[in-house]
Amino acid sequence: MRVAIQGEAGSFSHEAAQRMLPGCAVVACPRSAEVFDRVLRGSVAAAVIPIENTLAGSVAEHFDLLLASQVFIQREFRLRIVHNLIAAPGVRKHGLRRVLSHPVALDQCRNFFRKHPALEAVPFYDTAGSVKHVVENGMRDAAAIAGRRAAAVYGGNILAAGLEDDKHNFTRFFLVRKTRRVLPGANKTSIAFGLGNVPGALHKALGVFAQRKISLSKIESRPMRGRPWEYVFYADFLRGDDQLARHALRSLAEVTDLVKVLGIYPAA
Amino acid sequence: MRVAIQGEAGSFSHEAAQRMLPGCAVVACPRSAEVFDRVLRGSVAAAVIPIENTLAGSVAEHFDLLLASQVFIQREFRLRIVHNLIAAPGVRKHGLRRVLSHPVALDQCRNFFRKHPALEAVPFYDTAGSVKHVVENGMRDAAAIAGRRAAAVYGGNILAAGLEDDKHNFTRFFLVRKTRRVLPGANKTSIAFGLGNVPGALHKALGVFAQRKISLSKIESRPMRGRPWEYVFYADFLRGDDQLARHALRSLAEVTDLVKVLGIYPAA
Repeated sequence: MRVAIQGEAGSFSHEAAQRMLPGCAVVACPRSAEVFDRVLRGSVAAAVIPIENTLAGSVAEHFDLLLASQVFIQREFRLRIVHNLIAAPGVRKHGLRRVLSHPVALDQCRNFFRKHPALEAVPFYDTAGSVKHVVENGMRDAAAIAGRRAAAVYGGNILAAGLEDDKHNFTRFFLVRKTRRVLPGANKTSIAFGLGNVPGALHKALGVFAQRKISLSKIESRPMRGRPWEYVFYADFLRGDDQLARHALRSLAEVTDLVKVLGIYPAA
Repeated sequence: MRVAIQGEAGSFSHEAAQRMLPGCAVVACPRSAEVFDRVLRGSVAAAVIPIENTLAGSVAEHFDLLLASQVFIQREFRLRIVHNLIAAPGVRKHGLRRVLSHPVALDQCRNFFRKHPALEAVPFYDTAGSVKHVVENGMRDAAAIAGRRAAAVYGGNILAAGLEDDKHNFTRFFLVRKTRRVLPGANKTSIAFGLGNVPGALHKALGVFAQRKISLSKIESRPMRGRPWEYVFYADFLRGDDQLARHALRSLAEVTDLVKVLGIYPAA
Protein backbone atom coordinates (compact mmCIF):
# COMPACT_ATOMS: atom_id res chain seq x y z
CA MET A 1 0.00 0.00 0.00
CA ARG A 2 1.46 3.36 -1.10
CA VAL A 3 0.95 6.29 1.29
CA ALA A 4 1.91 9.91 0.57
CA ILE A 5 3.50 12.13 3.23
CA GLN A 6 4.81 15.69 3.13
CA GLY A 7 8.53 16.14 3.79
CA GLU A 8 11.57 13.88 3.83
CA ALA A 9 11.52 10.13 4.35
CA GLY A 10 12.27 9.43 8.01
CA SER A 11 10.14 12.34 9.27
CA PHE A 12 7.53 12.12 12.04
CA SER A 13 4.89 11.82 9.29
CA HIS A 14 6.75 8.74 8.05
CA GLU A 15 6.73 7.37 11.60
CA ALA A 16 2.98 8.02 11.95
CA ALA A 17 2.28 6.35 8.57
CA GLN A 18 4.20 3.23 9.64
CA ARG A 19 2.35 3.08 12.94
CA MET A 20 -1.07 3.48 11.30
CA LEU A 21 -0.38 1.20 8.34
CA PRO A 22 2.46 -1.20 9.21
CA GLY A 23 4.39 -2.22 6.11
CA CYS A 24 3.10 0.60 3.91
CA ALA A 25 5.41 2.13 1.26
CA VAL A 26 5.82 5.84 1.91
CA VAL A 27 5.89 8.33 -1.00
CA ALA A 28 7.68 11.48 0.25
CA CYS A 29 6.41 14.71 -1.39
CA PRO A 30 8.07 18.12 -0.96
CA ARG A 31 4.72 19.98 -0.83
CA SER A 32 1.40 19.34 0.92
CA ALA A 33 -0.60 20.22 -2.21
CA GLU A 34 1.19 17.38 -4.00
CA VAL A 35 0.20 14.95 -1.22
CA PHE A 36 -3.48 15.77 -1.77
CA ASP A 37 -3.08 15.69 -5.59
CA ARG A 38 -1.68 12.17 -5.38
CA VAL A 39 -4.62 10.96 -3.28
CA LEU A 40 -7.10 12.52 -5.73
CA ARG A 41 -5.31 11.12 -8.81
CA GLY A 42 -5.13 7.70 -7.18
CA SER A 43 -1.33 7.40 -7.51
CA VAL A 44 -1.34 6.57 -3.76
CA ALA A 45 -3.96 4.71 -1.72
CA ALA A 46 -3.93 7.23 1.12
CA ALA A 47 -2.07 10.11 2.76
CA VAL A 48 -0.96 10.63 6.36
CA ILE A 49 -0.86 14.32 7.34
CA PRO A 50 -0.09 16.15 10.59
CA ILE A 51 -3.03 18.34 11.62
CA GLU A 52 -2.02 19.78 15.00
CA ASN A 53 0.76 19.63 17.57
CA THR A 54 0.39 20.16 21.32
CA LEU A 55 3.11 22.81 21.42
CA ALA A 56 3.07 24.29 17.92
CA GLY A 57 -0.69 24.37 17.23
CA SER A 58 -2.63 23.65 14.05
CA VAL A 59 -1.25 23.03 10.56
CA ALA A 60 -3.45 25.63 8.89
CA GLU A 61 -2.51 24.61 5.35
CA HIS A 62 -3.79 21.08 5.93
CA PHE A 63 -7.16 22.32 7.21
CA ASP A 64 -7.45 24.46 4.09
CA LEU A 65 -6.55 21.51 1.82
CA LEU A 66 -9.08 19.25 3.58
CA LEU A 67 -11.78 21.83 2.90
CA ALA A 68 -10.78 22.37 -0.74
CA SER A 69 -10.25 18.70 -1.74
CA GLN A 70 -12.69 15.84 -2.26
CA VAL A 71 -11.04 13.57 0.30
CA PHE A 72 -12.27 11.97 3.53
CA ILE A 73 -10.61 11.47 6.93
CA GLN A 74 -10.75 7.79 7.81
CA ARG A 75 -8.64 7.61 10.99
CA GLU A 76 -6.82 9.81 13.48
CA PHE A 77 -3.62 8.97 15.35
CA ARG A 78 -1.68 10.69 18.14
CA LEU A 79 2.10 10.28 17.92
CA ARG A 80 4.26 11.18 20.89
CA ILE A 81 7.18 13.27 19.60
CA VAL A 82 10.41 11.61 20.83
CA HIS A 83 13.70 13.23 19.82
CA ASN A 84 16.82 11.08 19.37
CA LEU A 85 20.50 11.87 18.98
CA ILE A 86 21.55 10.16 15.73
CA ALA A 87 25.02 9.93 14.14
CA ALA A 88 26.86 8.05 11.38
CA PRO A 89 27.84 4.43 12.27
CA GLY A 90 30.95 4.24 14.46
CA VAL A 91 30.65 7.80 15.76
CA ARG A 92 30.76 8.03 19.57
CA LYS A 93 28.97 10.55 21.75
CA HIS A 94 32.17 11.89 23.37
CA GLY A 95 33.66 12.78 19.98
CA LEU A 96 30.76 15.09 19.09
CA ARG A 97 31.14 18.87 18.79
CA ARG A 98 27.98 19.90 16.86
CA VAL A 99 24.35 18.78 16.77
CA LEU A 100 22.20 19.65 13.73
CA SER A 101 18.41 19.81 13.60
CA HIS A 102 15.38 21.96 12.85
CA PRO A 103 15.31 25.01 15.18
CA VAL A 104 12.00 23.84 16.73
CA ALA A 105 13.51 20.43 17.60
CA LEU A 106 16.70 22.04 19.00
CA ASP A 107 14.53 24.30 21.14
CA GLN A 108 12.59 21.29 22.47
CA CYS A 109 15.85 19.71 23.73
CA ARG A 110 17.23 22.60 25.81
CA ASN A 111 17.97 20.50 28.91
CA PHE A 112 20.13 18.18 26.80
CA PHE A 113 22.27 21.10 25.57
CA ARG A 114 22.46 22.48 29.14
CA LYS A 115 23.84 19.12 30.30
CA HIS A 116 26.33 19.01 27.39
CA PRO A 117 27.75 22.55 27.13
CA ALA A 118 30.53 21.41 24.74
CA LEU A 119 27.92 20.64 22.05
CA GLU A 120 26.97 23.42 19.67
CA ALA A 121 23.35 23.44 18.43
CA VAL A 122 23.36 24.09 14.65
CA PRO A 123 20.04 24.98 12.95
CA PHE A 124 19.14 22.87 9.88
CA TYR A 125 16.05 23.07 7.67
CA ASP A 126 14.58 19.67 8.57
CA THR A 127 14.90 17.00 11.31
CA ALA A 128 15.10 13.92 9.05
CA GLY A 129 17.18 15.92 6.54
CA SER A 130 19.77 16.62 9.25
CA VAL A 131 20.20 12.85 9.82
CA LYS A 132 20.57 12.31 6.07
CA HIS A 133 23.21 15.08 6.01
CA VAL A 134 25.43 13.80 8.88
CA VAL A 135 25.21 10.13 7.77
CA GLU A 136 25.70 10.64 4.01
CA ASN A 137 28.67 12.95 4.61
CA GLY A 138 30.14 10.52 7.17
CA MET A 139 30.54 13.34 9.68
CA ARG A 140 32.65 12.27 12.69
CA ASP A 141 32.14 15.26 15.01
CA ALA A 142 28.45 15.95 14.29
CA ALA A 143 25.12 14.29 15.10
CA ALA A 144 21.50 15.15 14.32
CA ILE A 145 18.27 15.27 16.34
CA ALA A 146 15.23 13.55 14.79
CA GLY A 147 12.64 10.81 15.21
CA ARG A 148 13.83 7.17 15.36
CA ARG A 149 12.49 6.47 11.87
CA ALA A 150 15.17 8.75 10.40
CA ALA A 151 17.94 6.53 11.85
CA ALA A 152 16.42 3.47 10.15
CA VAL A 153 15.92 5.24 6.80
CA TYR A 154 19.43 6.75 6.51
CA GLY A 155 21.44 4.07 8.35
CA GLY A 156 22.29 6.20 11.38
CA ASN A 157 22.92 5.05 14.97
CA ILE A 158 20.78 6.25 17.85
CA LEU A 159 23.27 7.46 20.51
CA ALA A 160 20.60 8.70 22.95
CA ALA A 161 16.76 8.68 23.02
CA GLY A 162 14.13 10.83 24.71
CA LEU A 163 16.04 14.14 24.43
CA GLU A 164 12.85 16.24 24.49
CA ASP A 165 12.17 18.41 27.56
CA ASP A 166 8.39 18.10 27.41
CA LYS A 167 7.05 14.54 27.44
CA HIS A 168 3.53 15.82 26.66
CA ASN A 169 4.42 16.74 23.09
CA PHE A 170 2.02 14.98 20.70
CA THR A 171 1.21 15.45 17.04
CA ARG A 172 -2.23 14.46 15.77
CA PHE A 173 -2.27 12.88 12.30
CA PHE A 174 -5.12 12.11 9.89
CA LEU A 175 -5.27 9.19 7.48
CA VAL A 176 -6.94 10.64 4.40
CA ARG A 177 -8.45 8.70 1.49
CA LYS A 178 -10.30 9.51 -1.67
CA THR A 179 -13.45 7.56 -0.89
CA ARG A 180 -15.84 8.17 1.98
CA ARG A 181 -15.79 5.18 4.32
CA VAL A 182 -16.83 5.19 7.97
CA LEU A 183 -14.96 2.58 10.02
CA PRO A 184 -16.74 0.53 12.72
CA GLY A 185 -16.53 2.27 16.10
CA ALA A 186 -16.40 5.75 14.51
CA ASN A 187 -17.41 8.19 17.29
CA LYS A 188 -15.86 11.49 16.21
CA THR A 189 -16.69 13.84 13.32
CA SER A 190 -14.63 16.65 11.80
CA ILE A 191 -16.53 19.38 9.98
CA ALA A 192 -15.97 22.76 8.36
CA PHE A 193 -18.64 25.44 8.20
CA GLY A 194 -18.73 29.00 6.92
CA LEU A 195 -20.27 32.07 8.56
CA GLY A 196 -20.66 35.66 7.45
CA ASN A 197 -19.81 38.59 9.68
CA VAL A 198 -23.16 38.67 11.52
CA PRO A 199 -23.12 39.17 15.31
CA GLY A 200 -24.32 36.00 16.99
CA ALA A 201 -23.87 33.78 13.92
CA LEU A 202 -21.44 31.45 15.66
CA HIS A 203 -23.61 31.36 18.78
CA LYS A 204 -26.54 30.22 16.63
CA ALA A 205 -24.43 27.59 14.87
CA LEU A 206 -23.19 26.13 18.14
CA GLY A 207 -26.74 26.05 19.51
CA VAL A 208 -27.37 23.19 17.09
CA PHE A 209 -24.92 21.05 19.10
CA ALA A 210 -25.73 22.47 22.54
CA GLN A 211 -29.45 21.67 22.31
CA ARG A 212 -28.57 18.04 21.48
CA LYS A 213 -25.90 17.84 24.22
CA ILE A 214 -23.24 17.00 21.63
CA SER A 215 -19.71 17.81 22.89
CA LEU A 216 -17.37 19.81 20.69
CA SER A 217 -13.76 18.73 21.22
CA LYS A 218 -12.21 21.43 19.01
CA ILE A 219 -13.14 24.64 17.28
CA GLU A 220 -11.01 27.00 15.28
CA SER A 221 -11.67 29.91 12.93
CA ARG A 222 -9.74 30.77 9.78
CA PRO A 223 -10.33 33.77 7.54
CA MET A 224 -11.66 32.80 4.10
CA ARG A 225 -9.12 33.71 1.45
CA GLY A 226 -10.13 36.74 -0.60
CA ARG A 227 -13.34 37.24 1.44
CA PRO A 228 -12.54 39.68 4.23
CA TRP A 229 -14.67 39.34 7.38
CA GLU A 230 -15.93 35.91 6.44
CA TYR A 231 -14.71 32.94 8.36
CA VAL A 232 -14.56 29.21 7.99
CA PHE A 233 -14.75 27.24 11.23
CA TYR A 234 -13.19 23.84 11.78
CA ALA A 235 -14.81 21.80 14.52
CA ASP A 236 -14.70 18.27 15.91
CA PHE A 237 -17.67 16.80 17.76
CA LEU A 238 -17.92 13.55 19.67
CA ARG A 239 -20.52 11.60 17.69
CA GLY A 240 -20.24 9.11 14.85
CA ASP A 241 -22.54 8.62 11.87
CA ASP A 242 -25.83 8.35 13.84
CA GLN A 243 -29.25 9.95 13.61
CA LEU A 244 -28.61 12.62 16.25
CA ALA A 245 -25.45 13.75 14.45
CA ARG A 246 -27.22 13.76 11.09
CA HIS A 247 -30.02 15.90 12.50
CA ALA A 248 -27.48 18.30 13.98
CA LEU A 249 -25.68 18.62 10.64
CA ARG A 250 -28.98 19.27 8.84
CA SER A 251 -29.83 22.04 11.33
CA LEU A 252 -26.34 23.46 11.00
CA ALA A 253 -26.76 23.72 7.24
CA GLU A 254 -29.86 25.88 7.82
CA VAL A 255 -27.97 28.50 9.85
CA THR A 256 -24.63 28.57 7.99
CA ASP A 257 -23.38 29.33 4.48
CA LEU A 258 -21.56 26.05 3.95
CA VAL A 259 -21.14 22.75 5.83
CA LYS A 260 -18.66 20.06 4.84
CA VAL A 261 -18.10 16.79 6.69
CA LEU A 262 -14.32 16.26 6.53
CA GLY A 263 -14.44 12.81 8.11
CA ILE A 264 -16.11 10.45 10.60
CA TYR A 265 -13.68 8.17 12.45
CA PRO A 266 -12.86 6.41 15.72
CA ALA A 267 -11.37 8.85 18.28
CA ALA A 268 -7.71 8.08 19.00
CA MET B 1 13.39 52.62 22.51
CA ARG B 2 14.49 48.97 22.79
CA VAL B 3 12.11 46.36 21.35
CA ALA B 4 12.54 42.59 21.64
CA ILE B 5 11.78 40.26 18.70
CA GLN B 6 12.14 36.51 18.26
CA GLY B 7 14.59 35.34 15.59
CA GLU B 8 17.43 36.92 13.65
CA ALA B 9 17.86 40.64 12.99
CA GLY B 10 16.47 41.41 9.53
CA SER B 11 13.46 39.09 9.94
CA PHE B 12 9.84 40.02 9.20
CA SER B 13 9.42 40.67 12.96
CA HIS B 14 12.23 43.22 12.65
CA GLU B 15 10.44 44.81 9.69
CA ALA B 16 7.16 44.96 11.65
CA ALA B 17 8.91 46.51 14.67
CA GLN B 18 10.46 49.24 12.48
CA ARG B 19 7.10 49.98 10.87
CA MET B 20 5.26 50.18 14.20
CA LEU B 21 8.00 52.08 16.04
CA PRO B 22 10.24 53.89 13.52
CA GLY B 23 13.77 54.29 14.85
CA CYS B 24 13.46 51.65 17.58
CA ALA B 25 16.47 49.50 18.50
CA VAL B 26 15.67 45.84 18.00
CA VAL B 27 16.90 43.20 20.48
CA ALA B 28 16.94 39.83 18.65
CA CYS B 29 16.24 36.84 20.95
CA PRO B 30 16.59 33.20 19.87
CA ARG B 31 13.48 32.09 21.82
CA SER B 32 9.98 33.51 22.29
CA ALA B 33 10.05 32.86 26.05
CA GLU B 34 13.10 35.15 26.27
CA VAL B 35 11.19 37.90 24.41
CA PHE B 36 8.45 37.82 27.06
CA ASP B 37 10.99 37.57 29.92
CA ARG B 38 12.72 40.73 28.69
CA VAL B 39 9.42 42.66 28.62
CA LEU B 40 8.58 41.49 32.15
CA ARG B 41 12.06 42.28 33.52
CA GLY B 42 11.97 45.70 31.85
CA SER B 43 15.20 45.18 29.89
CA VAL B 44 13.19 46.23 26.78
CA ALA B 45 10.32 48.73 26.54
CA ALA B 46 8.16 46.44 24.38
CA ALA B 47 8.08 43.35 22.17
CA VAL B 48 6.77 42.85 18.64
CA ILE B 49 5.52 39.30 18.06
CA PRO B 50 3.85 37.56 15.09
CA ILE B 51 0.49 36.09 16.12
CA GLU B 52 -0.98 34.71 12.88
CA ASN B 53 -0.26 34.44 9.18
CA THR B 54 -2.83 34.24 6.39
CA LEU B 55 -1.30 31.10 4.91
CA ALA B 56 0.40 29.43 7.88
CA GLY B 57 -2.16 30.11 10.64
CA SER B 58 -1.71 31.00 14.30
CA VAL B 59 1.54 31.08 16.25
CA ALA B 60 0.24 28.90 19.08
CA GLU B 61 3.26 29.46 21.33
CA HIS B 62 2.64 33.22 21.35
CA PHE B 63 -1.01 32.78 22.37
CA ASP B 64 0.14 30.54 25.22
CA LEU B 65 2.77 33.09 26.33
CA LEU B 66 0.22 35.94 26.22
CA LEU B 67 -2.05 33.90 28.51
CA ALA B 68 0.75 32.94 30.92
CA SER B 69 2.50 36.36 31.18
CA GLN B 70 1.47 39.62 32.83
CA VAL B 71 1.75 41.66 29.63
CA PHE B 72 -0.77 43.68 27.61
CA ILE B 73 -1.34 44.06 23.85
CA GLN B 74 -1.21 47.74 22.95
CA ARG B 75 -1.35 47.69 19.15
CA GLU B 76 -1.81 45.31 16.21
CA PHE B 77 -0.21 45.61 12.78
CA ARG B 78 -0.66 43.70 9.52
CA LEU B 79 2.53 43.30 7.48
CA ARG B 80 2.32 42.17 3.88
CA ILE B 81 4.94 39.44 3.34
CA VAL B 82 7.10 40.48 0.37
CA HIS B 83 9.94 38.17 -0.60
CA ASN B 84 13.11 39.58 -2.21
CA LEU B 85 16.08 38.03 -3.97
CA ILE B 86 19.13 39.27 -2.06
CA ALA B 87 22.84 38.67 -2.80
CA ALA B 88 26.28 39.94 -1.77
CA PRO B 89 27.27 43.31 -3.30
CA GLY B 90 28.48 43.02 -6.91
CA VAL B 91 26.76 39.68 -7.56
CA ARG B 92 24.58 39.70 -10.69
CA LYS B 93 21.39 37.75 -11.25
CA HIS B 94 22.68 35.88 -14.33
CA GLY B 95 25.63 34.49 -12.37
CA LEU B 96 23.40 32.75 -9.81
CA ARG B 97 23.11 28.99 -9.52
CA ARG B 98 21.54 28.51 -6.06
CA VAL B 99 18.95 30.34 -3.95
CA LEU B 100 18.85 29.74 -0.18
CA SER B 101 15.91 30.35 2.16
CA HIS B 102 13.53 28.82 4.68
CA PRO B 103 11.47 26.03 3.03
CA VAL B 104 8.21 27.95 3.62
CA ALA B 105 9.60 31.02 1.80
CA LEU B 106 10.96 28.88 -1.07
CA ASP B 107 7.54 27.27 -1.40
CA GLN B 108 5.85 30.69 -1.56
CA CYS B 109 8.02 31.65 -4.59
CA ARG B 110 7.31 28.68 -6.87
CA ASN B 111 6.52 30.79 -9.96
CA PHE B 112 9.93 32.47 -9.67
CA PHE B 113 11.70 29.08 -9.72
CA ARG B 114 9.51 27.92 -12.61
CA LYS B 115 10.60 31.01 -14.60
CA HIS B 116 14.28 30.38 -13.67
CA PRO B 117 14.81 26.62 -14.06
CA ALA B 118 18.62 27.01 -13.82
CA LEU B 119 18.29 28.13 -10.17
CA GLU B 120 18.37 25.46 -7.49
CA ALA B 121 16.23 26.11 -4.37
CA VAL B 122 18.30 25.22 -1.28
CA PRO B 123 16.51 24.94 2.09
CA PHE B 124 18.02 26.96 4.94
CA TYR B 125 16.84 27.26 8.55
CA ASP B 126 15.85 30.95 8.45
CA THR B 127 15.05 33.66 5.85
CA ALA B 128 17.15 36.50 7.35
CA GLY B 129 19.83 33.94 8.32
CA SER B 130 20.15 32.90 4.67
CA VAL B 131 20.93 36.52 3.69
CA LYS B 132 23.52 36.74 6.48
CA HIS B 133 25.06 33.49 5.18
CA VAL B 134 25.39 34.47 1.50
CA VAL B 135 26.63 38.00 2.25
CA GLU B 136 29.11 37.17 5.04
CA ASN B 137 30.62 34.35 3.00
CA GLY B 138 30.79 36.59 -0.11
CA MET B 139 29.08 33.89 -2.18
CA ARG B 140 29.20 34.71 -5.91
CA ASP B 141 26.83 32.06 -7.30
CA ALA B 142 24.19 32.10 -4.53
CA ALA B 143 21.46 34.47 -3.37
CA ALA B 144 18.88 34.33 -0.56
CA ILE B 145 15.13 35.00 -0.30
CA ALA B 146 14.00 37.20 2.60
CA GLY B 147 12.28 40.46 3.58
CA ARG B 148 13.88 43.76 2.51
CA ARG B 149 15.00 44.51 6.07
CA ALA B 150 17.50 41.62 5.86
CA ALA B 151 19.28 43.31 2.93
CA ALA B 152 19.72 46.51 4.97
CA VAL B 153 20.90 44.65 8.10
CA TYR B 154 23.51 42.44 6.40
CA GLY B 155 24.57 44.75 3.56
CA GLY B 156 23.05 42.67 0.75
CA ASN B 157 21.71 43.91 -2.60
CA ILE B 158 18.09 43.37 -3.61
CA LEU B 159 18.24 41.84 -7.13
CA ALA B 160 14.47 41.35 -7.46
CA ALA B 161 11.44 42.18 -5.30
CA GLY B 162 7.91 40.74 -5.00
CA LEU B 163 8.90 37.11 -5.65
CA GLU B 164 5.93 35.71 -3.69
CA ASP B 165 3.17 33.93 -5.63
CA ASP B 166 0.35 35.02 -3.33
CA LYS B 167 0.02 38.76 -2.81
CA HIS B 168 -2.58 38.18 -0.06
CA ASN B 169 0.01 36.87 2.38
CA PHE B 170 -0.13 38.93 5.58
CA THR B 171 1.26 38.39 9.05
CA ARG B 172 -0.49 39.98 12.02
CA PHE B 173 1.82 41.31 14.75
CA PHE B 174 1.14 42.49 18.31
CA LEU B 175 3.02 45.22 20.14
CA VAL B 176 3.19 43.95 23.71
CA ARG B 177 4.11 45.98 26.81
CA LYS B 178 4.30 45.34 30.52
CA THR B 179 1.77 47.96 31.58
CA ARG B 180 -1.90 48.04 30.69
CA ARG B 181 -2.61 51.10 28.58
CA VAL B 182 -5.54 51.54 26.19
CA LEU B 183 -4.74 53.86 23.28
CA PRO B 184 -7.30 56.38 21.99
CA GLY B 185 -9.46 54.85 19.26
CA ALA B 186 -9.14 51.32 20.69
CA ASN B 187 -12.05 49.34 19.19
CA LYS B 188 -10.89 45.73 19.40
CA THR B 189 -10.33 43.41 22.38
CA SER B 190 -8.40 40.13 22.60
CA ILE B 191 -9.39 37.75 25.39
CA ALA B 192 -8.70 34.21 26.58
CA PHE B 193 -11.26 32.14 28.45
CA GLY B 194 -11.31 28.60 29.80
CA LEU B 195 -14.10 26.03 29.57
CA GLY B 196 -14.50 22.53 30.94
CA ASN B 197 -15.77 19.64 28.85
CA VAL B 198 -19.48 20.38 29.30
CA PRO B 199 -21.76 20.15 26.24
CA GLY B 200 -23.02 23.61 25.37
CA ALA B 201 -20.42 25.46 27.45
CA LEU B 202 -19.04 27.34 24.46
CA HIS B 203 -22.55 28.09 23.20
CA LYS B 204 -23.37 29.66 26.57
CA ALA B 205 -20.13 31.67 26.57
CA LEU B 206 -20.77 33.07 23.09
CA GLY B 207 -24.35 33.95 24.06
CA VAL B 208 -22.84 36.73 26.19
CA PHE B 209 -21.65 38.43 22.99
CA ALA B 210 -24.60 37.46 20.77
CA GLN B 211 -27.22 38.99 23.08
CA ARG B 212 -25.29 42.29 22.99
CA LYS B 213 -24.74 42.12 19.20
CA ILE B 214 -20.96 42.22 19.67
CA SER B 215 -19.09 40.79 16.65
CA LEU B 216 -16.39 38.21 17.21
CA SER B 217 -13.63 38.57 14.61
CA LYS B 218 -11.67 35.46 15.66
CA ILE B 219 -12.07 32.40 17.84
CA GLU B 220 -9.71 29.51 18.38
CA SER B 221 -9.46 26.67 20.87
CA ARG B 222 -6.26 25.23 22.36
CA PRO B 223 -6.06 22.26 24.70
CA MET B 224 -4.89 23.23 28.20
CA ARG B 225 -1.54 21.65 28.93
CA GLY B 226 -1.75 18.76 31.36
CA ARG B 227 -5.56 19.05 31.64
CA PRO B 228 -7.08 16.67 29.09
CA TRP B 229 -10.51 17.68 27.75
CA GLU B 230 -10.26 21.23 29.01
CA TYR B 231 -9.79 24.03 26.53
CA VAL B 232 -8.69 27.60 26.50
CA PHE B 233 -10.34 29.79 23.86
CA TYR B 234 -8.73 32.81 22.27
CA ALA B 235 -11.18 35.33 20.85
CA ASP B 236 -11.19 38.86 19.43
CA PHE B 237 -14.30 41.02 19.54
CA LEU B 238 -14.94 44.38 17.92
CA ARG B 239 -15.42 46.67 20.92
CA GLY B 240 -13.04 48.86 22.88
CA ASP B 241 -13.01 49.61 26.61
CA ASP B 242 -16.68 50.69 26.92
CA GLN B 243 -19.56 49.80 29.22
CA LEU B 244 -21.15 47.24 26.88
CA ALA B 245 -17.84 45.38 26.58
CA ARG B 246 -17.28 45.50 30.33
CA HIS B 247 -20.75 44.07 30.97
CA ALA B 248 -20.10 41.31 28.44
CA LEU B 249 -16.82 40.41 30.13
CA ARG B 250 -18.48 40.34 33.53
CA SER B 251 -21.17 37.98 32.22
CA LEU B 252 -18.53 35.85 30.52
CA ALA B 253 -16.72 35.43 33.85
CA GLU B 254 -19.95 34.00 35.34
CA VAL B 255 -20.20 31.19 32.76
CA THR B 256 -16.49 30.32 32.31
CA ASP B 257 -13.64 29.07 34.49
CA LEU B 258 -11.21 31.88 33.64
CA VAL B 259 -11.30 35.12 31.65
CA LYS B 260 -8.22 37.18 30.82
CA VAL B 261 -8.18 40.38 28.78
CA LEU B 262 -5.01 40.11 26.67
CA GLY B 263 -5.32 43.62 25.24
CA ILE B 264 -7.59 46.42 24.02
CA TYR B 265 -6.29 48.28 20.96
CA PRO B 266 -7.20 50.04 17.69
CA ALA B 267 -8.01 47.51 14.91
CA ALA B 268 -5.37 47.53 12.16
